[in-house]
Amino acid sequence: MQRKSFDGMICPIARSLERVGEWWSMLILRDAFAGLTRFDEFQKSLGIASNMLSRRLAALVEAGMLERRQYSVHPPRDEYVLTDRGRDFRTVLMTLLAFGNRHFAPEGASVMIVDAATGEPAEPVLVDRSSGRLLAGPDFKLTAGPAASAAKKAKFAERDAGVSLIRECRKHSP
Amino acid sequence: MQRKSFDGMICPIARSLERVGEWWSMLILRDAFAGLTRFDEFQKSLGIASNMLSRRLAALVEAGMLERRQYSVHPPRDEYVLTDRGRDFRTVLMTLLAFGNRHFAPEGASVMIVDAATGEPAEPVLVDRSSGRLLAGPDFKLTAGPAASAAKKAKFAERDAGVSLIRECRKHSP
Repeated sequence: MQRKSFDGMICPIARSLERVGEWWSMLILRDAFAGLTRFDEFQKSLGIASNMLSRRLAALVEAGMLERRQYSVHPPRDEYVLTDRGRDFRTVLMTLLAFGNRHFAPEGASVMIVDAATGEPAEPVLVDRSSGRLLAGPDFKLTAGPAASAAKKAKFAERDAGVSLIRECRKHSP
Repeated sequence: MQRKSFDGMICPIARSLERVGEWWSMLILRDAFAGLTRFDEFQKSLGIASNMLSRRLAALVEAGMLERRQYSVHPPRDEYVLTDRGRDFRTVLMTLLAFGNRHFAPEGASVMIVDAATGEPAEPVLVDRSSGRLLAGPDFKLTAGPAASAAKKAKFAERDAGVSLIRECRKHSP
């Protein structure tokens, strides 16, 4: 499989993908949220080859998303349970789920997020915790954080100074 | 590259991953949000092989996330711009970014979401649009939607009936 490691990339998106960006990893986490813990349960759910499943589970343990626990001594058997970090990934899966329902479910939703008490469907939106304002749209932007490299800071400063507008102009000049 | 197609899986998470679940695809979308549109810009930003970049861009066009537009006739040159569907993926990238900052940025954030007017850092949380309640936690659950298979409906019904509790019990019985 051809891929480049993102370890050198400081971008938090790239870093998350480095740990959980494999298709299988995200589906294993999805199944862990659904209550699956055992190797054979994941295998049955995903139809994945044993060696691939072993590797993905080991990587998720390594990334601190799952914890490996022995649940039987004779015979020795382990299970995999979500850590706090793993549980925090729920937000990402929920946004992926909502995105999939909006765009890739022409026959209607097969899985929905609902109010546990009333059964009313929920519509997940991303907001700023303190102000409650929607994060989509022009109210918010990305910017360089305290740990950004000088190059990244310059890139964001350039963009703020209207470089993308300049590029637009260039495009239409002879 | 060993992978199984998720086309047959009705799960909306699996369907989203089928379209955008490659590492590169998500990073290309990230760069598209940052204003990149041209082949050589993506290549320079990502350090990705030309043939891989071509394939990922074509797949994103095929999935309706990017639109290919000719911006020069002599010489013929195309650019790739986000479609409405592509722009809607912003939520997923923002949750990945926030997750990465929380868990994989020991030296501090390199990229942050801030209020465009005040520069105040935002903290993205996922809420139900109409009630504004946090979607994490026990207030909300996943359930089968109208398009779910009979098997999937049975699975969710089982879970609601406390099967995971039964499994817990089994684990501790001799």
